[in-house]
Amino acid sequence: MRAVDIIQKKKEGKTHTKEEINFLVKGLMEGTVEDYQMASWLMAVCFQDLNEDETAYLTEAFINSGAILDFSDISNLVADKHSTGGVGDKVTIVLIPLLASLGVKCAKLSGRGLGYTGGTVDKLESIPNFVCALDENHFKEQIKKIGAAISAQTPNLTPADGKIYALRDVTATVDNKALICASVVSKKIASGADIIVLDVKYGAGAFIKTPKEARELADLMIKTGAKLNKKIEAIISAMEQPLGTHIGNSLEIIESIEFLKGNYNKDLYEIVFEIASKTLILAELAKDKTEAGALIDNAIKSGAALNKLKEIINSQNGNSACIDDYNLFNIGKNKFEIKAEKEGYISELDALKIAHACKLLGAGRDKKSDSIDFGAGCILNKKTGDEVKIGETLLTLYWNEVSPSKVEEAKVYAAEAFSYSNSKPTPCELIAKI
Amino acid sequence: MRAVDIIQKKKEGKTHTKEEINFLVKGLMEGTVEDYQMASWLMAVCFQDLNEDETAYLTEAFINSGAILDFSDISNLVADKHSTGGVGDKVTIVLIPLLASLGVKCAKLSGRGLGYTGGTVDKLESIPNFVCALDENHFKEQIKKIGAAISAQTPNLTPADGKIYALRDVTATVDNKALICASVVSKKIASGADIIVLDVKYGAGAFIKTPKEARELADLMIKTGAKLNKKIEAIISAMEQPLGTHIGNSLEIIESIEFLKGNYNKDLYEIVFEIASKTLILAELAKDKTEAGALIDNAIKSGAALNKLKEIINSQNGNSACIDDYNLFNIGKNKFEIKAEKEGYISELDALKIAHACKLLGAGRDKKSDSIDFGAGCILNKKTGDEVKIGETLLTLYWNEVSPSKVEEAKVYAAEAFSYSNSKPTPCELIAKI
Repeated sequence: MRAVDIIQKKKEGKTHTKEEINFLVKGLMEGTVEDYQMASWLMAVCFQDLNEDETAYLTEAFINSGAILDFSDISNLVADKHSTGGVGDKVTIVLIPLLASLGVKCAKLSGRGLGYTGGTVDKLESIPNFVCALDENHFKEQIKKIGAAISAQTPNLTPADGKIYALRDVTATVDNKALICASVVSKKIASGADIIVLDVKYGAGAFIKTPKEARELADLMIKTGAKLNKKIEAIISAMEQPLGTHIGNSLEIIESIEFLKGNYNKDLYEIVFEIASKTLILAELAKDKTEAGALIDNAIKSGAALNKLKEIINSQNGNSACIDDYNLFNIGKNKFEIKAEKEGYISELDALKIAHACKLLGAGRDKKSDSIDFGAGCILNKKTGDEVKIGETLLTLYWNEVSPSKVEEAKVYAAEAFSYSNSKPTPCELIAKI
Repeated sequence: MRAVDIIQKKKEGKTHTKEEINFLVKGLMEGTVEDYQMASWLMAVCFQDLNEDETAYLTEAFINSGAILDFSDISNLVADKHSTGGVGDKVTIVLIPLLASLGVKCAKLSGRGLGYTGGTVDKLESIPNFVCALDENHFKEQIKKIGAAISAQTPNLTPADGKIYALRDVTATVDNKALICASVVSKKIASGADIIVLDVKYGAGAFIKTPKEARELADLMIKTGAKLNKKIEAIISAMEQPLGTHIGNSLEIIESIEFLKGNYNKDLYEIVFEIASKTLILAELAKDKTEAGALIDNAIKSGAALNKLKEIINSQNGNSACIDDYNLFNIGKNKFEIKAEKEGYISELDALKIAHACKLLGAGRDKKSDSIDFGAGCILNKKTGDEVKIGETLLTLYWNEVSPSKVEEAKVYAAEAFSYSNSKPTPCELIAKI
């Protein structure tokens, strides 16, 4: 078998065998298939696609390239959740303590942010002293003891995906559904959970642009899970405007804490509710959404979910006093309010432009090696559908040390993110039916 | 400018600017664009193609990546010829002494064989002591003195093409016409000739499979030449069966010597005639094909062309006694005759299968580092259209040291190369009209 023949085959639109996919992935890890051969094959896949079987083979090859976590000694109902990424997406930070407080064991491995998408690890690290780099033993022991742990992904899980993802990122081969599916599903299966709920996001602020594509991707991920004997559920949600009201690392943690105190934005609640209720039903802790909803509301009202977050923070070396004292967070010393220039309704709030503004202020990174400022970001005062008067505050930008030119650029992006209309826009569905 | 954005642009079928093409090619040479990014772009080009302007930009970027030869101190009518490659193609070895004997200065840079295609450098090196690695000074002095030199390509001409060709070879991105055009035309223009005649081959034994594609490629190469102010002519020729009768390094030199002695196969003569007459007309040494034909025939009959070959061999350290004593060549000590198994006409003679048989016997190489046996190859006794009786010899295989299993495999390929029919097949046109 030669890599060049396998690439040629895909270029011609033919179907790979399991052996061919394994040859490429194993070869890449062993150095017998070169990065440039993989890059060429990835581009051919973007044009010719992979079918469901090939996608499952690729997913399996990624899983088998590294370690596979096993929680069977803890419970046979460990849950995990994954979002395909969006702006202001702090669902994990709310969901994990919430579910754990209801008795669902949660083993969550998260990533850092890159480009426009924030990363849960960065957000959590804005909690003073919080440690995300847990070793496997700590990770498992914490789940056993308090029912949940959130750790940074270790490079020994699906290393082939790690290598290929890095290639895709710089070769314009990120947006193929089969490649996205294999990357996400392999990571989740190797993470060892029994119940996996995926949040597939589409829209201006996501990799996937249309609900149709999101549905196809969700469908492919569920089927791939089934082919590899893993129960996967998915929700499809819009990412046209940022999720919730706070964007930026410290600010998103504060919004998450407020959520668990019962002060929540309804869009964020809707997503958390959808994923939490699906998980509770899969875990057989609730019969239906009504029952699940009652459990969720009670976990918040009783303070159990907030208390679980406190336990997680304490168990991961964080200073949980921040829950009651937001001054313990790094929040930008400088702020600037963007005011409405027109009167009417917000017809659109561009998530990408908001993300770009926050990135300019230091909240995100372009390269893995870039440092980020936990205190940078913004709080939205107005969202799509809201009525505004001229001069009303639309959002507040926060930053610490940034060049004045970048601050000015961020202000422009932030202002441009808002579009206006004279009549109230029809609200778009946040969660699509699958 | 970022490589990933340029790749994305081509992936979406958009058109590159000259700056973008230069960014990629210069970046590859300087290490700021990675091999895997180039590979991904090359695959995107295979799907989305380059237009005529982009092809000219790429060609120019290749030329500017290295040295450009200049023969203006010798003559302003230096000729060069290039073939896109085929089985048994020894046209250069006949053509260069022939043209030089007629007063056309010939500066020919050639390559080594790889895969199924033989290389002129390997063939010439089968002449005892012949040296192909001429330095620029020797190359130019020889052209000044005797009117012709044939040298191995030096890595300081079009190094970007060298690097990209090596990538294409292992990433299944060889067969795009714009990429082939840029590779061939850049090399020829950097080689400094004023008159360039290209032989674009199509068929079973060539990269290009159909006359339509060959015509498109020839057309693109002529247009690219025009955009870069260089007069390029092209012929389009079929490569369904091997060219001439001898395949293999020493054997092809012997056929070339025989040609110049006046004993030629008509197909080989037809190609040589077509290229030689086009060159003579471009060099204003003949008004039309009739005049050119008379000059060519006279150069052969008078022995002037053969004498020029002798001068070239002597000037490049070779032992020209081989012209009259073929025993000085390495010719396979072992031989085997493949006999006709049926009666009738040869309806097809598969060039690739013949090439594969010769390669198995040691005449070709798979990797650049493989050694080759100058003595291995075959002589065809029958070609397409010939009548055969059962038991008549179709071809004779020659080899030195090869494992018996490879010899047996070669015999099978050689026998399978011949197809039979009951009626005389309609001869296919060797040279297509452009």
